Amino acid sequence: MLTGKMAPAMFIERFRPSITPIALRSYLAEFISTFFYVFSVIGSAMASRKLMSDAATDPSSLVIVAVANTFALSSAVYVAANISGGHVNPAVTFGMAVCGRISVPTALFYWISQMFASVMACLLLKVTTVAQHFPTYAIANEMTGFGASLVEGVLTFALVYTVYAASERGSPGAIGPLTIGMMAGALVLASGPFSGGSMNPASAFGAAVVGGSFKNQAVYWVGPLIGAAAAGLLYDNVVLPAQARDSGRGTLEGIGV
Amino acid sequence: MLTGKMAPAMFIERFRPSITPIALRSYLAEFISTFFYVFSVIGSAMASRKLMSDAATDPSSLVIVAVANTFALSSAVYVAANISGGHVNPAVTFGMAVCGRISVPTALFYWISQMFASVMACLLLKVTTVAQHFPTYAIANEMTGFGASLVEGVLTFALVYTVYAASERGSPGAIGPLTIGMMAGALVLASGPFSGGSMNPASAFGAAVVGGSFKNQAVYWVGPLIGAAAAGLLYDNVVLPAQARDSGRGTLEGIGV
Amino acid sequence: MLTGKMAPAMFIERFRPSITPIALRSYLAEFISTFFYVFSVIGSAMASRKLMSDAATDPSSLVIVAVANTFALSSAVYVAANISGGHVNPAVTFGMAVCGRISVPTALFYWISQMFASVMACLLLKVTTVAQHFPTYAIANEMTGFGASLVEGVLTFALVYTVYAASERGSPGAIGPLTIGMMAGALVLASGPFSGGSMNPASAFGAAVVGGSFKNQAVYWVGPLIGAAAAGLLYDNVVLPAQARDSGRGTLEGIGV
Amino acid sequence: MLTGKMAPAMFIERFRPSITPIALRSYLAEFISTFFYVFSVIGSAMASRKLMSDAATDPSSLVIVAVANTFALSSAVYVAANISGGHVNPAVTFGMAVCGRISVPTALFYWISQMFASVMACLLLKVTTVAQHFPTYAIANEMTGFGASLVEGVLTFALVYTVYAASERGSPGAIGPLTIGMMAGALVLASGPFSGGSMNPASAFGAAVVGGSFKNQAVYWVGPLIGAAAAGLLYDNVVLPAQARDSGRGTLEGIGV
Repeated sequence: MLTGKMAPAMFIERFRPSITPIALRSYLAEFISTFFYVFSVIGSAMASRKLMSDAATDPSSLVIVAVANTFALSSAVYVAANISGGHVNPAVTFGMAVCGRISVPTALFYWISQMFASVMACLLLKVTTVAQHFPTYAIANEMTGFGASLVEGVLTFALVYTVYAASERGSPGAIGPLTIGMMAGALVLASGPFSGGSMNPASAFGAAVVGGSFKNQAVYWVGPLIGAAAAGLLYDNVVLPAQARDSGRGTLEGIGV
Repeated sequence: MLTGKMAPAMFIERFRPSITPIALRSYLAEFISTFFYVFSVIGSAMASRKLMSDAATDPSSLVIVAVANTFALSSAVYVAANISGGHVNPAVTFGMAVCGRISVPTALFYWISQMFASVMACLLLKVTTVAQHFPTYAIANEMTGFGASLVEGVLTFALVYTVYAASERGSPGAIGPLTIGMMAGALVLASGPFSGGSMNPASAFGAAVVGGSFKNQAVYWVGPLIGAAAAGLLYDNVVLPAQARDSGRGTLEGIGV
Repeated sequence: MLTGKMAPAMFIERFRPSITPIALRSYLAEFISTFFYVFSVIGSAMASRKLMSDAATDPSSLVIVAVANTFALSSAVYVAANISGGHVNPAVTFGMAVCGRISVPTALFYWISQMFASVMACLLLKVTTVAQHFPTYAIANEMTGFGASLVEGVLTFALVYTVYAASERGSPGAIGPLTIGMMAGALVLASGPFSGGSMNPASAFGAAVVGGSFKNQAVYWVGPLIGAAAAGLLYDNVVLPAQARDSGRGTLEGIGV
Repeated sequence: MLTGKMAPAMFIERFRPSITPIALRSYLAEFISTFFYVFSVIGSAMASRKLMSDAATDPSSLVIVAVANTFALSSAVYVAANISGGHVNPAVTFGMAVCGRISVPTALFYWISQMFASVMACLLLKVTTVAQHFPTYAIANEMTGFGASLVEGVLTFALVYTVYAASERGSPGAIGPLTIGMMAGALVLASGPFSGGSMNPASAFGAAVVGGSFKNQAVYWVGPLIGAAAAGLLYDNVVLPAQARDSGRGTLEGIGV
């Protein structure tokens, strides 16, 4: 007797595992980690702009933003790793949800936490630094929106692929979180002056809200979400499917590092 | 029969566990680690100023100071980790004392060691380099003292939160100390040209004593101490309370990195 | 009765262990890791050139390319480590084949994957960034081709020696892949403006194909392949031969770090 | 019957444990690691000088040399760690010998390997790059030789203290070697433009031999050797004496990271 009354009850029922104390702590952990990641990445762009007005054309500024990405993402993932899994990125959460590693309701709450954290971090930066001009992600003049979204998608593919590889092995104390940060930093060094090198819809969203410009925002959502889903599906189904993991036969000829 | 005579005896009694050989070795370890941390951080600021007189407005100098923070704090925490716990920072010690992870008398001796180490490191730098001008932490012209203290408080919150997460897991050989250093470096990249990016009352104090300028010193004490206490209380009571740790149910849906 | 008909059958038989599902996954893992390594390294050179037209003579650009090498190689090796062994470099594969750690047919498929990945990464960079000029590896004017090849050989010797040392110990979660990346970064800092600092025939090949200039290409093949083979043979036969490993007597007087 | 004839026999006898196959492999490992450490550090100084003629006064060059130190020392120590202990520095060997962790004859062979490796690395750099001017370590004009030697001694104290802390714990796969490299990099950032930031008599010696200038060479020997011995003696006798290690009571109140 599936009445109309039961539908909302079932709806609520589906959300129940996503509002336990453990789940709420996860959302808090995602909020805190994303807050500090966005604070560092956007803050470092503001800092290099303050030091040099034409920072957008200075190689040192690229080093600053890339190193901030590596350091901030590594530590943000690390501190949340054993509580929320350390996504710190709506694209990572999306990839996990597509592969069924996390339920859709939980993923929604992760997204809300990450978005809210990013906006709050950008607001804090704008207010305390009395910023005249707030930096948003931008693409190079010669690039098309499609090209930029393609690049951001490829970058996010690499990032989520690394997240999957890191989740496969090692204790939380091992270098998984560091590797994720290093992959992000390497990709920013390669893409910063071209597509902006966001790889994270939350940071692009927060910067856009506080900076007041949603120009090219789709670039930082479409590519990354597709790239994240593709990386997750490829890893779980082709690169290292469950049966290969279980049989411990993942490595060819036993030549691991 | 609580007489007036017993009070000082009890007072001394409270300090007794803080003057055992093991405790004294801890203070020595804190002294050495803080000495080299402050030596590297203040020394790197002096080095970039020597190389370029307008270093305060050069992006490369921000990279130098941030990387010095990461490298020096990671290694300073590491070498002291299995002796004193590797605080290297009065704010960390304050947060630990507020949460009851360390006794108040021991915390006082930690503070004395850290302050003394910082002053000695700054003195060594000033004397050997025959420095005309000794660098002290400063805030940007457009920022208010309150804003700068707020930023320093948020930075220190992130740092102490990372220290707590690192202390939760992993052997001393794992990447906990490295993560603490990376968080510090990322925060310096974001805040250096605005609030100074000290996050450590000891380094601000040592630089002020040797540089002879206590201007804005309160900025580097009020915010950091409040931020450190808030991070410790939040982590121990909300993010990962003792019962969650014991039951091994900290992670949501088993998605750790 | 060894007839002419059997020879091709035996030939195919030799290749059979190299086309199992596990082996195919290894080639895919090598493709993905090499793709992102080359994307980051060549992309970072393009990024610094875009920021500053005379980037080839700017120290910051050397930092960008070296840090990109460290970050990208560390993470690329890490994500492939427990699937393909994480070679990401035809010279490493060559060294492994010379020492018998990997069969020749498998090595050939590794090479094809690595070369193809490098060309695809360079193509993506050229197309999306609408690049007028694509960077290829070059040697300094005052250097001879022989000198440059010698330097590249010495660099690759160091890199492969590090790969062998990393494969000797530690779980895949430990710092082996990070160490390989750090060695590469240090060597690029020392050699970048002189021999180009490729150490990887695949990245030199991809850049040459897409850039359309095979000038000095031999420099990036002859030296590295000889250096890789020398490092592998020295490590396996002199530095740490099998019997020393088995008896656990590798360390002198027990002073390990 | 202790005759004059027996004395040389005993002398040879003392050296016998230092010429076993295991010992010879250790010297080879020290040679290779020191070769690549010196190649990277001196090579990076040459590279930044090539990119910018006034590199000695550019902050980016300080970043290059410091990061080269961290990357090269971390990986050089790592690859030699389970063979020779990963000294890569005559000062470290001296400190180990003073504390009795290594025998004097073995230490002598370590020194010879390290010195020889440094000279060979500098020669290779000079020959292949056709260098007009070879860089040697130098102290700032305003500093005295005594002040510079004091600074180098303090730096080496920190480095050897870190080596001792790293040797105390963790498997060879853990972050001990990385921490040693980070300490070195932080110290170079603080001292580079003042005392040169060598901390390693071998690299100073090799550069002086090939550069042909022994000016201030004593600065890079006297301070470092005294600092190394002091660090070793302090660590083994005060900070973490054997009985504290054995009883597993090294940590105060159990607050390790």
